[in-house]
Amino acid sequence: MSDEAPFAFGGLERVLHERARLGIVTSLAARPEGVRFSDLKRLCDLTDGNLARHVQVLEEAGLVKAERITGKKRLTRFRLTDEGRERFFAYLRALEDALKAADAAARQIDPPAEPARA
Amino acid sequence: MSDEAPFAFGGLERVLHERARLGIVTSLAARPEGVRFSDLKRLCDLTDGNLARHVQVLEEAGLVKAERITGKKRLTRFRLTDEGRERFFAYLRALEDALKAADAAARQIDPPAEPARA
Repeated sequence: MSDEAPFAFGGLERVLHERARLGIVTSLAARPEGVRFSDLKRLCDLTDGNLARHVQVLEEAGLVKAERITGKKRLTRFRLTDEGRERFFAYLRALEDALKAADAAARQIDPPAEPARA
Repeated sequence: MSDEAPFAFGGLERVLHERARLGIVTSLAARPEGVRFSDLKRLCDLTDGNLARHVQVLEEAGLVKAERITGKKRLTRFRLTDEGRERFFAYLRALEDALKAADAAARQIDPPAEPARA
């Protein structure tokens, strides 16, 4: 956190901070064996189109890889890449710092209850 | 958090979750007396154009109000509205829950160190 710009929150990497993508990456971290498209849809409550779009952003950023498994039916399973794991960890540390800063700020406008003044 | 869609993170209201806007709202919470445009720029490390755009989004969403003070020179001071305070508090609770879920997921891919297997 910079003294000069304490609320710039530069560590909140945009590709991971976006809500849907944070859900997708969290799902993939929770299931390191890989997650199928249909399961990701359910875990993150996303439409086909939204999930496809956000997964593409994550793939292009090098955070997620798709494994196409040919068999009785076409399956696609998604996993985090090694780089995706590292950037997710870094993002979580930045998010924790941002939450602390925001909580401290919130206490300025919602201080602990105190006795009413006379 | 929904059992069906545990990683939808629906409480992360998009207007507040966006990084620059989170910085602006945190700045305004930290300084309930109001913050001038030039100070917001510095606190959040934003350009004039970006700050103006994000403040407009926050004003249109009812979270922020501008007070134009005429005097020797034109000043504009920004504050959170009552609704902005309440939605910021709700957002922070949702963010804390999301961080807990993401931290728990991250432990699946980065378990505590254990002795190397034989």
